[in-house]
Amino acid sequence: MTDARVGIIVGSTSDLEIMKACTEQLERFEVPTELTVASAHRNPERVHEWATTARRRGLQVIIAAAGKAAHLAGAVAAYTSLPVVAVPIKTSDLGGLDSLLSTVQMPSGVPVACVAINGAKNAAILATQIIAAGDPALVQVLEDFKRELAQG
Amino acid sequence: MTDARVGIIVGSTSDLEIMKACTEQLERFEVPTELTVASAHRNPERVHEWATTARRRGLQVIIAAAGKAAHLAGAVAAYTSLPVVAVPIKTSDLGGLDSLLSTVQMPSGVPVACVAINGAKNAAILATQIIAAGDPALVQVLEDFKRELAQG
Amino acid sequence: MTDARVGIIVGSTSDLEIMKACTEQLERFEVPTELTVASAHRNPERVHEWATTARRRGLQVIIAAAGKAAHLAGAVAAYTSLPVVAVPIKTSDLGGLDSLLSTVQMPSGVPVACVAINGAKNAAILATQIIAAGDPALVQVLEDFKRELAQG
Amino acid sequence: MTDARVGIIVGSTSDLEIMKACTEQLERFEVPTELTVASAHRNPERVHEWATTARRRGLQVIIAAAGKAAHLAGAVAAYTSLPVVAVPIKTSDLGGLDSLLSTVQMPSGVPVACVAINGAKNAAILATQIIAAGDPALVQVLEDFKRELAQG
Amino acid sequence: MTDARVGIIVGSTSDLEIMKACTEQLERFEVPTELTVASAHRNPERVHEWATTARRRGLQVIIAAAGKAAHLAGAVAAYTSLPVVAVPIKTSDLGGLDSLLSTVQMPSGVPVACVAINGAKNAAILATQIIAAGDPALVQVLEDFKRELAQG
Amino acid sequence: MTDARVGIIVGSTSDLEIMKACTEQLERFEVPTELTVASAHRNPERVHEWATTARRRGLQVIIAAAGKAAHLAGAVAAYTSLPVVAVPIKTSDLGGLDSLLSTVQMPSGVPVACVAINGAKNAAILATQIIAAGDPALVQVLEDFKRELAQG
Amino acid sequence: MTDARVGIIVGSTSDLEIMKACTEQLERFEVPTELTVASAHRNPERVHEWATTARRRGLQVIIAAAGKAAHLAGAVAAYTSLPVVAVPIKTSDLGGLDSLLSTVQMPSGVPVACVAINGAKNAAILATQIIAAGDPALVQVLEDFKRELAQG
Amino acid sequence: MTDARVGIIVGSTSDLEIMKACTEQLERFEVPTELTVASAHRNPERVHEWATTARRRGLQVIIAAAGKAAHLAGAVAAYTSLPVVAVPIKTSDLGGLDSLLSTVQMPSGVPVACVAINGAKNAAILATQIIAAGDPALVQVLEDFKRELAQG
Repeated sequence: MTDARVGIIVGSTSDLEIMKACTEQLERFEVPTELTVASAHRNPERVHEWATTARRRGLQVIIAAAGKAAHLAGAVAAYTSLPVVAVPIKTSDLGGLDSLLSTVQMPSGVPVACVAINGAKNAAILATQIIAAGDPALVQVLEDFKRELAQG
Repeated sequence: MTDARVGIIVGSTSDLEIMKACTEQLERFEVPTELTVASAHRNPERVHEWATTARRRGLQVIIAAAGKAAHLAGAVAAYTSLPVVAVPIKTSDLGGLDSLLSTVQMPSGVPVACVAINGAKNAAILATQIIAAGDPALVQVLEDFKRELAQG
Repeated sequence: MTDARVGIIVGSTSDLEIMKACTEQLERFEVPTELTVASAHRNPERVHEWATTARRRGLQVIIAAAGKAAHLAGAVAAYTSLPVVAVPIKTSDLGGLDSLLSTVQMPSGVPVACVAINGAKNAAILATQIIAAGDPALVQVLEDFKRELAQG
Repeated sequence: MTDARVGIIVGSTSDLEIMKACTEQLERFEVPTELTVASAHRNPERVHEWATTARRRGLQVIIAAAGKAAHLAGAVAAYTSLPVVAVPIKTSDLGGLDSLLSTVQMPSGVPVACVAINGAKNAAILATQIIAAGDPALVQVLEDFKRELAQG
Repeated sequence: MTDARVGIIVGSTSDLEIMKACTEQLERFEVPTELTVASAHRNPERVHEWATTARRRGLQVIIAAAGKAAHLAGAVAAYTSLPVVAVPIKTSDLGGLDSLLSTVQMPSGVPVACVAINGAKNAAILATQIIAAGDPALVQVLEDFKRELAQG
Repeated sequence: MTDARVGIIVGSTSDLEIMKACTEQLERFEVPTELTVASAHRNPERVHEWATTARRRGLQVIIAAAGKAAHLAGAVAAYTSLPVVAVPIKTSDLGGLDSLLSTVQMPSGVPVACVAINGAKNAAILATQIIAAGDPALVQVLEDFKRELAQG
Repeated sequence: MTDARVGIIVGSTSDLEIMKACTEQLERFEVPTELTVASAHRNPERVHEWATTARRRGLQVIIAAAGKAAHLAGAVAAYTSLPVVAVPIKTSDLGGLDSLLSTVQMPSGVPVACVAINGAKNAAILATQIIAAGDPALVQVLEDFKRELAQG
Repeated sequence: MTDARVGIIVGSTSDLEIMKACTEQLERFEVPTELTVASAHRNPERVHEWATTARRRGLQVIIAAAGKAAHLAGAVAAYTSLPVVAVPIKTSDLGGLDSLLSTVQMPSGVPVACVAINGAKNAAILATQIIAAGDPALVQVLEDFKRELAQG
């Protein structure tokens, strides 16, 4: 078991810089997280193990970030019925259009919740909205955040 | 107050045909829903009213479907801190690339959870995954669904 | 009431640099303007208030600039029958294709007048052409501008 | 001189079917129009003559519709300081992406007001919004239209 | 153990029609095949089992066909060091651009050999070229095929 | 009358840097040229005058370079029956896809001969191939160039 | 030697239907042609032979039409210094964007003269413009054609 | 005869920098290679000679890298029945979408095995997988590589 409610998994260490905005936002929301680097293609067994045990380890939602032929979110969603928030990472050649289409165009039966290219901070907010469904205290946190956003 | 846990809003009656796969899947999951047709552009006040009252009417998650310059999901997300699942609708000229980019590329602070173009059924599954975060009975429903999917 | 004839609204302070070419051109045409920063997603109530009062505050045309899932122009157009000139802002990942499609592909009933990606100066010229419909002095200004353009 | 306030010009007779939604909407608004078929490429002298005389013939706004390498709106805008509303026409191969980019990406100094691909009806509404700047009666027509739209 | 030298795996029964051109070409080349329908997202454990045992079952090359967020070829390539030929399937909304980018843009370390959208027959030829590397008789078959192609 | 056989026209002084590779190649081929800066949108009358007199001034082929909604080549081709070679200029937002589609997708009846984005040198070679149709000495120059290219 | 001045080569018999508009236009211009079906990929030696002998067989310009990874025009241009007009053929999946980019984006040193997707008739006109450089009678034909076009 | 088992051919010296990751990976795998620079467009006879003799020189697989209208892999595949791995090179204007479509969309009968844009290292791995079909020692090398990849 882990204390983490949000499991963050990124396909490559090079994605960590982008995903800092995600972990920082979750910290600000005081949502406990765990962070793993594993590629659906290079470390499929590690992803398999991580995803199939996600729910019983206590995670409530997953955030997966990957670029190019970005299968990570889909691979995780294939193994768990937890909601999976996906962040397509910008690429140097096609700007992330490849990551976006690889992430969002999931076939019938296995959805992921895709946010914008490099939308790390929004992934954190969406994950918090999701776990707030069963946690009234977090609803207040989100309402406060929304109010500040409107004023900022 | 409504009994519905999932509020479905579509931008146009022409989107209803596609969204039938969504309502039917939620029925199969026995998740109560309500369905509204309102356009972010033609009926902005109705969308405004609908979205700002969504949480206190008892909704736990929203599904918004729209095509072309598809602002509906974003407009709803602007007014509520509930999670908003978005379905970009296929278009006859650009195939839905316009709907997809208009939906998924949300700015920092206001996420939507975008599924595939015309991904109506997946929107239902994702919405159910989200409310299952606070509802163990639904977890079982989703696990059963996943098992059947793997066998089917 | 405001003296401004053109109301400029931008989705983010980061768009102001690009929009300087717009305000400067309107100054050169001696068309009075007002400038507001408000996001359709982060500050929807402010946009709502701004747009619904635009005509009675004396504005004759609106210029709205936003990037990514660029809903600002459409959101304003939803609330007013004033003509809305839209500037899709270039994005760092998709070059502004997302902003462009989100802006221009408006559904039937609610048009915006879209100019080029980052077309700030052209937005000023178009807005001036629009108010010149009821202002012969401005026609002369525009004809002079066109003549200089041809010579320059 | 013409009684027409809106001059509609289309690049090809094959565009007339799409543009019927435009002429019909202007009729409903009781805005007098004239309609010309002329291609910027096949009939450049006719377009030249038509555009350079547009203002003194009494036109207040122009609507230009064309497909593929859609230069018609830009060609007209090059010759007149009247506002030019542009309708990029859907194409059978690229869906109208070619028409859209050829229309909207105008260089600095010469704007057109681009609506959606095949956005014929919206072109009519936008043109009416533009001439309403100097015509209070039309403002009422547009406000009524907006109210009906919201109710319909 | 299987007699098959080429293992064909398709993500959905709806892909079988397209892939008939593949199986027929391999039959003409008298290359023994096996055919499986399994989705990387709906049947991940089946794909996992199939791919991890592919080499020891005697397969020499794999052909994987899938559409949309087409992860099947990549998922198989993650689990085996056999060469994986990938066929991106045409989609009804984006024409297969999504399938193509999801398939071809594989990250460093785990390649797939992508052919054209719906390139079923070419997948068969490529697979045969690959196993011909260790089978002189097949070289002759391919040379004959090439000669006939040039004459046909 | 001009000694020039190739008339080069560019839409903006900012295109001159790219087009240096064109003028230099024509110099190397000893093909006399003239160079004009004129925009189809800002200087339509100048383009009109330049293009309608092109043939009687002695030009045998035209090279037109422009970016964004690149109408220059088409505008020139509308006014002359000389062959028009077109160079779509790379743009900072869409990479030149807008220039390319605006240039190459000409409607039936009025072709331009489009080369690659920023293909300035190739425009020079193509123009020389065209005038070589009636000039055997230039054929030799081109054959020599081709031989050197193959050796280089 | 052939009487033909324009050599037409198409990659596949399936392209002949589209190219009828090309041969018919050249017939109307009374320009003698020859027509060959040969694929750069399936019949490379035939294309090689055809292209290397094109000039000494008396051809003055070549028209090459192909779809998908459309290499035919480029392959011919690699072997001859004659001007090569290229027609990218529309494809059923990507609408011809693949054919267009494969055709137009030629590397430095070897241009082709690309017309619109399926621009068969324009290829005929462009080819005639090219050979008219050394044939005053054809100039008259083209001027007449242009006049009729403007009137039609 | 050559000792090389993998023949690498690149369209331009400017591609060599990208392809270093390919040659280095093959060195690490101790697979002997030969490297040639030749353009399908500038040096077609050299490519023709190189490709038609590839098999009898002892090559077992070919890697071809080129950008823009990237015909090199297809041109080689037209002349040999050896498997051809293709690397589309990133371009400065369209990011390599042109190279990718020109490479992957091969017509029926002549496949190439396309990897990602700039996927030089993956081309090396795929080529090794291909020759491992007839070389058990290389299978071990690849299995070791896969294990290290999973651990790294």
